[in-house]
Parts: sequence; C-alpha cells; structure tokens
Amino acid sequence: MTMTKLKERSLLGLKDLSRQEIESILDRAAYWEAQQEKVVPVLSTSFVANMFFENSTRTRFSFEMAEKRLGAQVLNFSAAASSVEKGESIYDTVKTLESMGIDAGVIRLKPSGVLEELAGKLTVPLINAGDGNNEHPTQALLDLFTMKRKFGTLQGLTVSIIGDISHSRVARSDLWALKKFGAEVKFCAPRSMQAPELEPYAQYVSMEEAMKSDVVMMLRVQLERHETGMLKSAEEYRAQYGLTVERAAKLSKHTLIMHPAPVNRNVEIDDAVVECEQSAIFTQMSNGVPVRMAVMERALK
Amino acid sequence: MTMTKLKERSLLGLKDLSRQEIESILDRAAYWEAQQEKVVPVLSTSFVANMFFENSTRTRFSFEMAEKRLGAQVLNFSAAASSVEKGESIYDTVKTLESMGIDAGVIRLKPSGVLEELAGKLTVPLINAGDGNNEHPTQALLDLFTMKRKFGTLQGLTVSIIGDISHSRVARSDLWALKKFGAEVKFCAPRSMQAPELEPYAQYVSMEEAMKSDVVMMLRVQLERHETGMLKSAEEYRAQYGLTVERAAKLSKHTLIMHPAPVNRNVEIDDAVVECEQSAIFTQMSNGVPVRMAVMERALK
Amino acid sequence: MTMTKLKERSLLGLKDLSRQEIESILDRAAYWEAQQEKVVPVLSTSFVANMFFENSTRTRFSFEMAEKRLGAQVLNFSAAASSVEKGESIYDTVKTLESMGIDAGVIRLKPSGVLEELAGKLTVPLINAGDGNNEHPTQALLDLFTMKRKFGTLQGLTVSIIGDISHSRVARSDLWALKKFGAEVKFCAPRSMQAPELEPYAQYVSMEEAMKSDVVMMLRVQLERHETGMLKSAEEYRAQYGLTVERAAKLSKHTLIMHPAPVNRNVEIDDAVVECEQSAIFTQMSNGVPVRMAVMERALK
Repeated sequence: MTMTKLKERSLLGLKDLSRQEIESILDRAAYWEAQQEKVVPVLSTSFVANMFFENSTRTRFSFEMAEKRLGAQVLNFSAAASSVEKGESIYDTVKTLESMGIDAGVIRLKPSGVLEELAGKLTVPLINAGDGNNEHPTQALLDLFTMKRKFGTLQGLTVSIIGDISHSRVARSDLWALKKFGAEVKFCAPRSMQAPELEPYAQYVSMEEAMKSDVVMMLRVQLERHETGMLKSAEEYRAQYGLTVERAAKLSKHTLIMHPAPVNRNVEIDDAVVECEQSAIFTQMSNGVPVRMAVMERALK
Repeated sequence: MTMTKLKERSLLGLKDLSRQEIESILDRAAYWEAQQEKVVPVLSTSFVANMFFENSTRTRFSFEMAEKRLGAQVLNFSAAASSVEKGESIYDTVKTLESMGIDAGVIRLKPSGVLEELAGKLTVPLINAGDGNNEHPTQALLDLFTMKRKFGTLQGLTVSIIGDISHSRVARSDLWALKKFGAEVKFCAPRSMQAPELEPYAQYVSMEEAMKSDVVMMLRVQLERHETGMLKSAEEYRAQYGLTVERAAKLSKHTLIMHPAPVNRNVEIDDAVVECEQSAIFTQMSNGVPVRMAVMERALK
Repeated sequence: MTMTKLKERSLLGLKDLSRQEIESILDRAAYWEAQQEKVVPVLSTSFVANMFFENSTRTRFSFEMAEKRLGAQVLNFSAAASSVEKGESIYDTVKTLESMGIDAGVIRLKPSGVLEELAGKLTVPLINAGDGNNEHPTQALLDLFTMKRKFGTLQGLTVSIIGDISHSRVARSDLWALKKFGAEVKFCAPRSMQAPELEPYAQYVSMEEAMKSDVVMMLRVQLERHETGMLKSAEEYRAQYGLTVERAAKLSKHTLIMHPAPVNRNVEIDDAVVECEQSAIFTQMSNGVPVRMAVMERALK
C-alpha cells in the first residue's frame, strides 16, 4: 500500500482530517445505523488487532462490536502492564503484530505524541482509540453524529465542554472537528484543569454561561489527579462544575446533554440527569458502533 | 420485547422458575448433548456479552463454548477490578454494553440481591452466571441434568450437600430446583458454614447420615473465609467434613459423587476420589455445555 | 483416539520428534506461507483452547492468528495467577476444558517437566507453547523455517546461540532440532547462564568465535534473574555479550541475525541492528503463523 493510501485509511486524529472526510464517515455511519442486518460480513477475510496499551473495556467492546458486525476476524491484545509503557516497546509490539499479518490495528496508548511516528513505520492502517491527552477521534465522530442527528446540522451550534479540559483527548478531538463545521466551542473548567494551548480556539466561560449552549458536554473528572489542586472534594466540584438537577432544570428544553462516559454519578453529573429526557449519553454509546463500522470499513475495504 | 417475554428468556435463578420450565430446558439440553454436529449456527446473528464482574475463567469458558457451538457472536467483558464493585457502576457498564447492541448478556457479579433490579432496567435477556451467594442457576441445571441421567428421575432422590452452605449459591440453586422435583435435600456443615434462612427447606444432618444419600455433593471450602471460625485447618476440615477415601469406600455403590469445581484436592474431597468410578465431577463439566446451549437458545431464538 | 494417534497429533517438544516429522511440518508451513487466501476454513468445527498459565500475549496472538486463518473456533484461557501455579491445579484446569469439549489445546506453563505426564492423561492433542526452560517447539520450528528459507538447507549450517542458555527453552528446542538436520550449534554465555547438562551437545565458545557462524541467534536476557551474579549491569552485558553495531558490522555478509523476541534493545542487541538488512527478527514472527498453521492442522485435521 502506498503511504498516501495508508494515510487515507488510517485515523490518527481529527485535527488534520478534512471536513469532507469527516462528513463522508458520518454519512457512512448513518448507512450502518440504518442497516437492519446485524452482521454484514464485508470484512470476513480481514484481521483486526485491538491493541490496548491502556485499559478500556468499553471502547474495546465498541470496536469489537463494530468489527464483528462487519464480519472481521478480531484479535484482542491488552498490555496495560508496565513492561510496555515505553514508546519503543509499543513500537516493537505493534510491529510484531503487523508481522503476524494483521490488516489493521486499533490502538489505545498512554503517551501523547508518539502515534504519528508509530503509524509512519507501519504498512497497515492504524485507528486511534485514544492516545494520552491528544486525540480520541472515534469518540468525537460519534459525538458529532449524535449532535447532527439531533440538530440536523453542526453549522452554528454552540457546544460547551465542561470539566478537565487539560487531560481530555475527547475535548481536543471534539474541538478540532466542531470548528471545521462552523460550530462554536466554549470551555468551562477550574484553572487547574484548563489547557492554555487551546485558548486561541475556544473561550473559557463561567458555568452560568456554559449552560446556555445547544450542547452541554460534561467530562469525567478524575479527582485523584487533582488532590493537591484547588478542588478539595467531589462535593465541591459538583457544586461548582457539576450538572446538578438544579442546573439541568434550568437548561433550555432543546439543549442536549452529553458525556463521553463512564460517568461519575453525582460528581460531574447528577444521577437523575444521566438518563433524563435531554440526555444523549447512552445514545452516544449506541452511535459509537455504526461510527466505528464506518471507520473500520474505510480502513479495510 | 415485552417485559413478560423478556422474563421468559432471562434466567436469573431457579427459585422462581416453574418445574415445567426447568424440565423444558433439561429436555433441550438432552437434545444438544446428543447432537453430533459441533457447530449448529442457529444464533449466528446474535451478539452475546459474557460480563464477568468476578473472575471465573471456567464458567466463562463453558458459556463461550455453548455460545460458539450455536454460532453466536461472542464478546467477553471482564471487570473484576475495584472500579466496578458498586452496584451502580455495574448498572452503568451493563447498560453501556446493551446500548452497543448486544442481544443477551451473561453476567457474574459479587453482590447478592441486585440482579433482579438490574434485569428490570434492561431490554435484553440476562443470564445469571452466579451472583454472590444467591443463585447459580446454570450450575444447578447441569447438576439436575447429571442426576437425571444417572437415576432416570429426580422424584424421591436424596441429595446431601456438604460444606460451606452459607456462602454457596450452588447449594441454594440446587435446593430450589430439587425441591420442585420432589427430591429431598440434606445439608451437612459446621455451624459457622450453616445458612439459618434455609432451615425450613433442608435438614442439617451429621456427616454419617449425609453419606447415605443417592447423591453426595461436596462444596468447595474457602478456608481463608473461616480463619477465625471453629475450623483450625484444612486437615481438620477434611477429617470432619471431607469425602475421604475411607468415607467414599463406605458409600452405597449407586451413590453419585458430585462437586461444582474447582476442587480442593485433599480438603473437601480426597485426590483419589475426584476421578473414581462413582464420581461425576468431570461429567458435570461436560454436561454444562449442552445445558448452557439450551439456556442461550431459549434466551435468543 | 488411540494413544499413538494422539501422540502423532500432539507437539510437546522437538527432542523426541523425528527429522522426517519436522520436515513434514516445515513443508506444510511452506504451503501455508504461499497460500493467497487469508482464511481457509478447514477447521471450522474444531474448538481450540489457548491455555496460557504464563503470560504471553505475543505467542498467544500468533497461535490465534494461525487458528483463525484455518477457521477454527478459538477460546482463550489465561490464568497466570497464583491459584494455578501448582502442577495439580493445571491438570484440573486442563481436564476441565477438555471435558467441555475442546478438540485441541495450546498450552504454556511455568513448570518444566510436567507436560508429558499431563498430555498422557488427556484424550485431545496438546501443543506446547513453552514449558519452563524445557522446550518451545513452535518457536524452534519457525527458526528452522527461517534458516531454511535463507540457506536452502540446514545441513552443515553453523548456528551460534548467545545469552541465557540456562533458562532458555528456545535454545533447547533449537538445539534438539538443528542436531537432527546436521547443523552445528555453538553456545556463548557467561558462566552463570550456561547449562551444564547441554555440554555434550554444543560447545561453549567465545563471543568472537560465536560471531563467525551462519546464524547468530541472540537470546533475551532477563537481568533481574542475575542480579547477584557476575553481571553488574545491562551496559556490562551489552559490552561482553551484546550484538552491538560494531560486532554486527564485522559479521560476514551472509550471516543471519535472529532473536526469538521480545528484544531488549541496546542490551543483547543494539537498536540499529534489530531491523538491519541481515536481521530476520520480524521475518521470524511472520513465519510463526504458517508454521503454527501447519502444527494446528496436524493436530486437528
């Protein structure tokens, strides 16, 4: 496969993907979403390795569903252990699986900024299932898919992303993609969770302001990361940045509530809000499968 | 699917299952047991998630064999880690996998008493692969299948269950099912391993008395659970409650020796007894596959 | 299956396998290597259990690729945990999976010297995926396959194996197999890594002498095993026994560099040497798949 073709089949991030490319994936996802047949074995001779160098049974499961609905041969490789934490070892492992004859690889890994170099050394397409705090393109694609379903278009939408922007690959992928479609992204986060390098692209607003958008996307907060920071407790975080029942009640009726999951109930989002009528949280998870079918088909067909 | 239909396809326990329903599963298991073809792909478009929130490679393996012999698409999800130990998190995980499009879920989990509520919130059938010390219905079904094979009928059989009744979901599921068929269940256990709430249903007898039944079912003892109790050591347990070579020699020739496995050789059962002629221990494991085929087919066809 | 037939289908080691048998596997591997079709479902009704009692995602992955390319039904069983570290428990587990109806088992386990006894108690073929420091027959078969591809014949080849001979099942399997084909094996290792019982079969030579062979096979060094030995550090090991860029540059142009992987870059082999033109390291991994296809087909067809 030529390097150009390989790049066209890989999906490392949305920052460098054209709006047209994204649209084409979303259109194909809509096709798969409407598909009545559960298994359409168009990839029955393709071997896919789900290589998870960081634990994530949910995302792996979603990819595996997508791959198996396309009839692909699926092999799972999980190596969250310390032995493969160095970038170099990840390369050796991925190269090994490639040597064994996989046709595409889905990869999740802890370090940021090594994926592009890694992909450049491979001869099979690579799909990013989350790399450090860099990108999580299939998550953002399913987010866009979900928003488009609700609002018809992404053009002109206002999207608030609330929480730990600094550590969030989801926030970044959503930001890059939404900007391409003319949506406006606003961030809301305590100072210790802000990402200075993203300031040119999205404004930080107050929680009150954030609640006025078409989409309110809550991020999972990992309080253990911020123990010595300004936030003393989950209660305090919830009070300042949580989508409480009170805040949810005040949202415009058309506002869509989203979350990449898994949720911390009663921390960044109240228990009763998770499955309320305006919440698309489990819909997002449903949409992940047809979106990933489109991504895997693009990689392999 | 209607709630009634969903309930008919799920298998949460045997306590509330009718004798007729159990018989119908056992009959269908007999059909699968006699089936010459290894793979009969009646479920090739069904996606099954084996969700193990408590480690059990054996039971998972048995379900996976059954599912694959029926041609189902199998995805394994294992999350024994602490992050999903709370009932609420289990719900979120199961709901997530359901959102992704599974057609049925096999579930094992540590807590007792949350399964029914969980199943009530789902729209796909749920199969209990062991929940706390509550029930382990497919294990009891394979036990009944094995006894029926040996004795022709369950009516009038005497079955001794010996060991840690208190913590045993197997003892409970067997008890509920055997009573429906007119079998008599006797328990034998040190006081610290007795389950007071089961006293109305089965009498506690001495080890000598327990050995006189048609079936002698030994339970795995987890001595680490009873360190501060009355039992000082594995040797002492074996002497008082173990199926030793001596005790086995005195059994009636028609008595069947059973154990849900894995066995502690030379604790609750002597090494030489495990595979003796009267033992059905590995036969039980064989029977588990057709029994689970019947259960999965009932859930999905 | 008769015991003779079972033995003919199992693969416990190369020490007791005839040259003719090995040749026949290598020939069949060549057939599979040349096969254009990715999936040839000759084993679609066969159930294979990959039973790894010691962690090894790479070898398991290679077997799984091979099995799935032949259309087999694959179930993975991993139990590296302490609960199954005793030989007896391994027997119970394997016997359990056999009872459930597997048609063949691939097994890796920590202890040496229990495999033959285990296989003797089973009624299905068993494939050794590495047992302690005893044998790793499929690794040696892929090594031979790789050498034969390069040199046309194994007769008269000189093969240096360098590193921790004492703990290496790869060194042993390669030794037994290469001797049968009239190749000469030389060992090179610090005293603490030598295996006295192999002295009758291979001579220990200096590093300088070792570098003069047709094949230079570096073994992975596990320095943590030798902390209190004569080697103080990775640097020291590299200086004395590593295939450094300097040593690699002095090799004859026809010399083949091999390694069973995973490599410790810049310990036993320099980073720049791993993928140099004379290195067959990733080719070995590629060859592992058709070799294992031949082995699984032999076991099951």
